[in-house]
Amino acid sequence: MRLAGADCRRHVAGARVARLATTDHAGRPHLVPITFALTAELAGEGSPADLIVTAVDQKPKSTTDLARLRNIRANPAVAVLCDHYSDDWTRLWWVRADGTGAILADGNERDEALSALAAKYPQYQADPPRGPVVAITVTRWSGWSAAPPR
Amino acid sequence: MRLAGADCRRHVAGARVARLATTDHAGRPHLVPITFALTAELAGEGSPADLIVTAVDQKPKSTTDLARLRNIRANPAVAVLCDHYSDDWTRLWWVRADGTGAILADGNERDEALSALAAKYPQYQADPPRGPVVAITVTRWSGWSAAPPR
Repeated sequence: MRLAGADCRRHVAGARVARLATTDHAGRPHLVPITFALTAELAGEGSPADLIVTAVDQKPKSTTDLARLRNIRANPAVAVLCDHYSDDWTRLWWVRADGTGAILADGNERDEALSALAAKYPQYQADPPRGPVVAITVTRWSGWSAAPPR
Repeated sequence: MRLAGADCRRHVAGARVARLATTDHAGRPHLVPITFALTAELAGEGSPADLIVTAVDQKPKSTTDLARLRNIRANPAVAVLCDHYSDDWTRLWWVRADGTGAILADGNERDEALSALAAKYPQYQADPPRGPVVAITVTRWSGWSAAPPR
């Protein structure tokens, strides 16, 4: 069944890994797994927008992996997916966040993102990511679960 | 460490779920989890090319989910990602296949793909996918593992 926005957020908040899709200048998709945190940003005077933050950390990367940054600079449209697989297909679920990515090289927003990441992943407390943060403003949640959400 | 092509294939062959990224006409990435099988196709007289096959099955879809088919028809460049997450980051790995997607509505190639899927997923033996098969010819393997491959 389709998941409502609140259920999408709950599933994503509990997930430890997601996948980030970006698109290069030639329209080719690029895909990497990411550690991430789900936070909120105050968008002007309206209600807070959901924000997914991820950082370029010290896990080894090939230069190609930074294709994610090059792609977002040229085209900020991104998609983030969390999913759960089980050979028992009554337990499957997935949630996709479509959104707009921004690269934060420094500043308060980057610091707040790093705090959220460190709160979720103890590894980041000992060794905070030194690279840029990618902050994704979620413009649309989509999700599906084989079983009714708890 | 970066994974060689043979290690990429081995990791992907053992994975039960992958994520398929496509790009829409406006350059926005689209992302869904897929069940899949890794097979090979005889590409002319050369050596066999790696092929990742997945099918539109009876798991509930919104019409939006079939964005994957619309996108591939307009732009066959796709990416497929398998990854393993553990809170022990010495056990992380991921493999990406960049490739070219084709949609098989019927014919021998679709039948062979469905056989490969049924051999991997018992659910497909009882209830073969009735939708099109997406066959992805892998043009490039990329992969990374925190630990040396076994």
